[in-house]
Amino acid sequence: MANISARNCFSGVVGKVETGPVNARVELTLAGGDRIVAIVTHESVEALALVPGVAAMAFVKASWVLLLAGGEKIRFSARNHLPGMVVSVEKGAVNSDVAVRLTGGSVVHAIVTNGAVLELGLKPGAPASVLFKASHVILGVPA
Amino acid sequence: MANISARNCFSGVVGKVETGPVNARVELTLAGGDRIVAIVTHESVEALALVPGVAAMAFVKASWVLLLAGGEKIRFSARNHLPGMVVSVEKGAVNSDVAVRLTGGSVVHAIVTNGAVLELGLKPGAPASVLFKASHVILGVPA
Amino acid sequence: MANISARNCFSGVVGKVETGPVNARVELTLAGGDRIVAIVTHESVEALALVPGVAAMAFVKASWVLLLAGGEKIRFSARNHLPGMVVSVEKGAVNSDVAVRLTGGSVVHAIVTNGAVLELGLKPGAPASVLFKASHVILGVPA
Repeated sequence: MANISARNCFSGVVGKVETGPVNARVELTLAGGDRIVAIVTHESVEALALVPGVAAMAFVKASWVLLLAGGEKIRFSARNHLPGMVVSVEKGAVNSDVAVRLTGGSVVHAIVTNGAVLELGLKPGAPASVLFKASHVILGVPA
Repeated sequence: MANISARNCFSGVVGKVETGPVNARVELTLAGGDRIVAIVTHESVEALALVPGVAAMAFVKASWVLLLAGGEKIRFSARNHLPGMVVSVEKGAVNSDVAVRLTGGSVVHAIVTNGAVLELGLKPGAPASVLFKASHVILGVPA
Repeated sequence: MANISARNCFSGVVGKVETGPVNARVELTLAGGDRIVAIVTHESVEALALVPGVAAMAFVKASWVLLLAGGEKIRFSARNHLPGMVVSVEKGAVNSDVAVRLTGGSVVHAIVTNGAVLELGLKPGAPASVLFKASHVILGVPA
């Protein structure tokens, strides 16, 4: 495990890599088959040697994760959208830390406002999806 | 209303779309005339069929919004900068949830540190602007 | 000082600027010699006249900063990675505000979960690095 404050860490294998002049789009396929998309700088792709087939990790801070509840009424631009079930809600004064177990087994933490917890009916056992932008994913490889 | 934890949801019509190899820049004109700029993946523009004239929504998590108070001493790279007035401050142990009513009428929520609330004099009635990066905006279209 | 809620403000001089069709990569060299990398829109580079040699500021919200503790076991895609030492931890119900003094003297604030504070052993005097993505940096120039 990495010594990093990010609460969400996914291990996988790099898939397709598309490179532009500034940024690059990198796919990571997780053990359970889920796919995570990351936008990182072109520079990072080279520095970390991110090519198809290498093992890599994806880190996502809990405050960068959005939660969705109920049926799909909207399609989102955010490239990472994984379904699951709420397993715990730790409530603070303004925000709550909501843990969602994904279909593949990973647990994802999201920091959302208490207002959102109430409106979306987020409580253990409730279905919920996690949503995060590709540009909010940090990739890592063993040093 | 979307079943999403993001506290800030703007409805509008897609304007100019500029596409690069990895990312695209999408303008959204709100009912009140305000303009929001989003950077999303090229892939999302195609998947959501984001072309000029279609209705779309922009979602911005409260923790991705910065607040500005007082006169303009600095010009920022963040493409979204909307003026308004503080309508409420809900204080937690570390962070506060500050609601700002924009000139156009929309209310935007920002989670900022209690230190910032104090330093900027954020209280109901005080003028404040909201600031967020184009790369922090998630776009959505009806499913 | 800017009237902005972002807890982290760095002053420096613009170095290399690389421009793509949508985004641009801008380097900022701080007084102490540290280098910060920002991804902003191509439009911002032009609007703010960001060219090598001009003075500029970088703003990073505390909730966009990750913390690393212990030896380096992983190399990250995030382009900004600055070593330092924890100087204070202000604990809330869910999150803590951790202040890290960088080698160059600047103090950086990070909002991380209480779970991370515990696991990483973040307390005054402990070594820690701050990590943030180039796409999470906002640049500013005097108005």
